[in-house]
Amino acid sequence: MNLKYAVIGTGALGGFYGGMLARSGKDVNFLFNSDFDYVVANGLKVDSVLGNFHLPHVNAFKQAIDMPVCDVILVCLKTMHNYLLDKILPSITHSNSLVILIQNGLGIEDDIAKKFPLLNVAGGMAFICSNKIGPGHINHLDYGTLILGAYYKDNTKLLQQVFTDFNCASVPAKIAPDLMQARWQKLVWNIPFNGMSVALNTTTDALINNKDTKSLAYEMMLEVIQAAQHCGINLEFDYAHKIIELTEKMKPYATSMKLDFDFKRPLEIEYIYSRPIQEALKVGFEMKKVSMLEKQLRFIQRSYLN
Amino acid sequence: MNLKYAVIGTGALGGFYGGMLARSGKDVNFLFNSDFDYVVANGLKVDSVLGNFHLPHVNAFKQAIDMPVCDVILVCLKTMHNYLLDKILPSITHSNSLVILIQNGLGIEDDIAKKFPLLNVAGGMAFICSNKIGPGHINHLDYGTLILGAYYKDNTKLLQQVFTDFNCASVPAKIAPDLMQARWQKLVWNIPFNGMSVALNTTTDALINNKDTKSLAYEMMLEVIQAAQHCGINLEFDYAHKIIELTEKMKPYATSMKLDFDFKRPLEIEYIYSRPIQEALKVGFEMKKVSMLEKQLRFIQRSYLN
Repeated sequence: MNLKYAVIGTGALGGFYGGMLARSGKDVNFLFNSDFDYVVANGLKVDSVLGNFHLPHVNAFKQAIDMPVCDVILVCLKTMHNYLLDKILPSITHSNSLVILIQNGLGIEDDIAKKFPLLNVAGGMAFICSNKIGPGHINHLDYGTLILGAYYKDNTKLLQQVFTDFNCASVPAKIAPDLMQARWQKLVWNIPFNGMSVALNTTTDALINNKDTKSLAYEMMLEVIQAAQHCGINLEFDYAHKIIELTEKMKPYATSMKLDFDFKRPLEIEYIYSRPIQEALKVGFEMKKVSMLEKQLRFIQRSYLN
Repeated sequence: MNLKYAVIGTGALGGFYGGMLARSGKDVNFLFNSDFDYVVANGLKVDSVLGNFHLPHVNAFKQAIDMPVCDVILVCLKTMHNYLLDKILPSITHSNSLVILIQNGLGIEDDIAKKFPLLNVAGGMAFICSNKIGPGHINHLDYGTLILGAYYKDNTKLLQQVFTDFNCASVPAKIAPDLMQARWQKLVWNIPFNGMSVALNTTTDALINNKDTKSLAYEMMLEVIQAAQHCGINLEFDYAHKIIELTEKMKPYATSMKLDFDFKRPLEIEYIYSRPIQEALKVGFEMKKVSMLEKQLRFIQRSYLN
């Protein structure tokens, strides 16, 4: 069976992962916002460490209502725009559609599953350095693994096929045995680096090359791992070392939150900080440094948003 | 006996407190740095909520070696310049001189007492909003109490007289029964507000009027109080409430650390953050949020200092 894909939000992630699928011949339908006209005229351009490519014609849509019903919905929105899914999902899904939330944070699947109890849901963790650098123009700098995880563990058949499609499209995809573990693992990186790159107005290489912020990042990673452990997740302290080493090898990178800050857009504080903090508190663990960063971010966001 | 005063460092604090003493007729000898020529020509100007005044002629010196030997030395330098005292103090003190360190932080008296075991030493905690706004020009915005505390509890006679001189000069001075308690009390304000005004590039009013940073400041105050308690200091959690309320009534204010940051000068991280953190660690208490702020400040300072 050939799956019909929808990409909701064609930015750094949607443009890259959707673009890779489209290049491999899959039927991919992209929802664009401000870039629509430009992409219709010029196509989608991906500069990638895996090889640059240009798709002169993509199935581009300006409104979800015009899109076909799809089997797999790749949600690549910023989480603060997930309220848009209330209108989008009903018009593009059938009863067996799979919605994959390729987003950062904790509790995103819970919220979608609560609103759409009949839909199949999965999570996607993108271990990638990728930015949108212009209309319909994605720059993929480093890494790229996409970890997929089923929200309903007894309903993974479609997810398996998505996994195969991605791998055939040269995207290194994996299926995580435990979505919640994968979500927390991703947070081990996102929590220190997304927030600190905003709070200290800098890039990941500067943070990892300074002994104070490197040690602070490490301490926050340990807090995240402790929180995960309190939540019953199988995650070892060793993982922090691994992520520090991985970040040391990473090319200079502005996190998505740093870009949001630079462009004075809202920050993804809710799912990346507040929800993990709340989940840990529920089981009696306080992430002190992470909470401090959350409050700093709220202050910073407040200073430029109304 | 009429005391002979020296003011080492005539900035926001030295200019105000020394200026008040000089206005009241005391013999005050000011050491200037870059402002020397201007003050010789124009005098010292103090705009103060207690009443503006101008001293057209002050005993101004460009080098300590030219200063007379004094009974009381008011050290109003930034703590990172205390190394200058190695040369200054021997030339301006006699065997009974009292050195009062009107500076922020912990362990300053220890360091001076170790270097000058024969000198009498005291601490001064300035609860004041005051800035230097031009050469020889001080702006005193709010408050002004000077808490004095003896380092050697059996040698307080001279300090009593300084206390009297300040009060006669309309400076609300008090003598603290316990210098270490007074030092920690001062830190309860300095630690959250000095650092956060730099880390978040803002003023105290913005920090106290935002619910996230207000609650963060409060949490850091509790950490400081816990640290003090672990160090055997008599300080109650209630004090944090008091300081929060006091800050709510304070006029908008850029802390001294914020000004250092704005002018790309070194920050007083060592005595305000590192020493209290170390003292608390010695007795088994970790100030987690304060340590996080310390590391952020070191990163920030590193970004503009070599």
